[in-house]
Amino acid sequence: MNQERNGDIEKRTDYEKILKEFGIAHIESIENRLPKDHLFFRRKIVFAHRDFDKLLDMTERNENWAIISGRGPSNDLHLGHLLVFELIKFLQEKYNCNFFMPLSNDEKYVFRKVNSIEETYKLSLENAIDIFAIGFKPDKVHAYISSESHNIYKLALSFSVNLTYNTVKAALGLSGEENIGTSFYSAIQAAHIMQPTVEYNYPVLVPIGLDQDVYMRLTRDIARKRNLFPPASLYVKYLKGITGAPMSSSKPETCIYLRDDERTVRKKIMNAFTGGRATKKEQRELGGVPELCTVFDWFKKFFVRDDKELEEIYTKCKSGEYICGINCKPRLIKYITDYQAKHDENRKKVIKNIEKYFEHKIDLSLLDLKESEKM
Amino acid sequence: MNQERNGDIEKRTDYEKILKEFGIAHIESIENRLPKDHLFFRRKIVFAHRDFDKLLDMTERNENWAIISGRGPSNDLHLGHLLVFELIKFLQEKYNCNFFMPLSNDEKYVFRKVNSIEETYKLSLENAIDIFAIGFKPDKVHAYISSESHNIYKLALSFSVNLTYNTVKAALGLSGEENIGTSFYSAIQAAHIMQPTVEYNYPVLVPIGLDQDVYMRLTRDIARKRNLFPPASLYVKYLKGITGAPMSSSKPETCIYLRDDERTVRKKIMNAFTGGRATKKEQRELGGVPELCTVFDWFKKFFVRDDKELEEIYTKCKSGEYICGINCKPRLIKYITDYQAKHDENRKKVIKNIEKYFEHKIDLSLLDLKESEKM
Repeated sequence: MNQERNGDIEKRTDYEKILKEFGIAHIESIENRLPKDHLFFRRKIVFAHRDFDKLLDMTERNENWAIISGRGPSNDLHLGHLLVFELIKFLQEKYNCNFFMPLSNDEKYVFRKVNSIEETYKLSLENAIDIFAIGFKPDKVHAYISSESHNIYKLALSFSVNLTYNTVKAALGLSGEENIGTSFYSAIQAAHIMQPTVEYNYPVLVPIGLDQDVYMRLTRDIARKRNLFPPASLYVKYLKGITGAPMSSSKPETCIYLRDDERTVRKKIMNAFTGGRATKKEQRELGGVPELCTVFDWFKKFFVRDDKELEEIYTKCKSGEYICGINCKPRLIKYITDYQAKHDENRKKVIKNIEKYFEHKIDLSLLDLKESEKM
Repeated sequence: MNQERNGDIEKRTDYEKILKEFGIAHIESIENRLPKDHLFFRRKIVFAHRDFDKLLDMTERNENWAIISGRGPSNDLHLGHLLVFELIKFLQEKYNCNFFMPLSNDEKYVFRKVNSIEETYKLSLENAIDIFAIGFKPDKVHAYISSESHNIYKLALSFSVNLTYNTVKAALGLSGEENIGTSFYSAIQAAHIMQPTVEYNYPVLVPIGLDQDVYMRLTRDIARKRNLFPPASLYVKYLKGITGAPMSSSKPETCIYLRDDERTVRKKIMNAFTGGRATKKEQRELGGVPELCTVFDWFKKFFVRDDKELEEIYTKCKSGEYICGINCKPRLIKYITDYQAKHDENRKKVIKNIEKYFEHKIDLSLLDLKESEKM
């Protein structure tokens, strides 16, 4: 449901085996039905799916479905986190969907990533504001902090009888020495995913990373036992880490946080791992390798939405015309700082309307808002 | 927390060992501080305690504490269930306490005693009305159906990190093939017990059967880890089953339900296991054995509140003056049917005020109320 463990999957080369084993289809299998007006579909950043075609069938029959994507709140959002939410914003507008966003503060707490529930509450709100500031409009967003929801425990309770401890133990690789919240969290996660189906009769789509698929399998199993529409999913590739290593929240050098100041952004990007050659001379002679390049990966997956523009960058890198430190890195820095500035502007609007995004009352007083954001 | 498993303890003769092993004190250890104005204390129906003296100290310092006692809702309440609540009513008035009553419908659901959460909701309300009709006034009662509570999941979540699965597995004797709700329920139970302490700063007293002490031990363990006042407890003897076998909800012949009609009550009591002799002649000659007698047990623990009156019954049984079927059984039948009639009257008042007892909104429309009880 989130990208905490994105490292695992990036290292794996056995995509094919995983897809086959768990009944996930290549996105090419529904190639001609994909909304190619978004770069994620044109550029295969969405690379696989389960049952997305069934939802497209529903759209053709004027039936509603919803998107659900959780966020395990953490200290600071980085650009990699926003990739999935950018996709969701597009899909929500394209298919006129409701978007349900559980902030799984309970997950972070039981897996001991955060020490207190109070702290997870604050992080949940902070993360939510940043996500909505991508450009979500409140009217079709249903956000909630899991521990504050009026319905989630009841739904998780209902589903809990459909999962034995041994099943969850095997699926998550538990030893028994974990706290009792960790195994029960599978029922909470299933409740997050299925709530739109149970309460609103919306079949759901879950955009997700392949490494998080274990929860999808547990939930689909429950859905079948309860005669509910099993959740469909889209599998999204992660953004490469700046250093070439997988992006990770806990390794600041691998990612750009939304809150990184311009100096930090510049420093991180100027040190980025690229597909460039060792010297300017070599680059001119041999050309770069955009396929290996972090900076190009970020252009491709996030910042350069025009295909011709991307093609031009690719060609000029390959031909040796572009030099990383002269052409591409400064360009990426500009994209990022512009994005951050626009995002900061958007935050103000979101904060003003924050109550409209949430399913329950919220207490903004816990947040450390910037002076300009205070109401 | 409830008396479902009351059979187990009645069979045990190793009280002493259990008390010692788990640090439970004989009630005699605080003999001179007990409220002897209630028969439960005069007659040692309350036979042991943990830390009750600490609460009595608080009362002397004009500090508040609360009583918490749950009810795992089931099909019908029998008189044995009401014994503990009779004690609570007395204590509540005596010490001017708030009484918290979680209806643990989640427990019944995860342990598969009831098939659906909807059904447990209905049973919870029905049981609650019957309990309040003992004579509870709404102003100091905080009742809630566990799955409907706004706070219980959050508190259970908070406590869940203090219990490993292996600890709960050993305490409850789980195999791993149980559903994931069963182990998490220990955290829910702890939340029920500790909620008055966490939310209102009231140390709590839990009146309980000795067979349910495992949950007390788990909860006291959590309380110590969290620097909270560990819950105190009073251990209450169960009412004997009519047949001589332990009373059990699932064995109608062993108990009197509140809903048993007069004919059923009469039939059950006339067939009761007593301490009487085989023939009237033998009874006159040898006298009865009230110590073994179910009917006398019910007089002693429930219906005969005056000590002299009880003494008289005892003496006349011993001397052979009383004959079970002539003196005692009809007397018990009268007590029971009078109790039921008064209880029925009380129900009407309770139903009229039912909203005042609960912490959350409730939906009475699910209940099958008698015509006279409808509003």
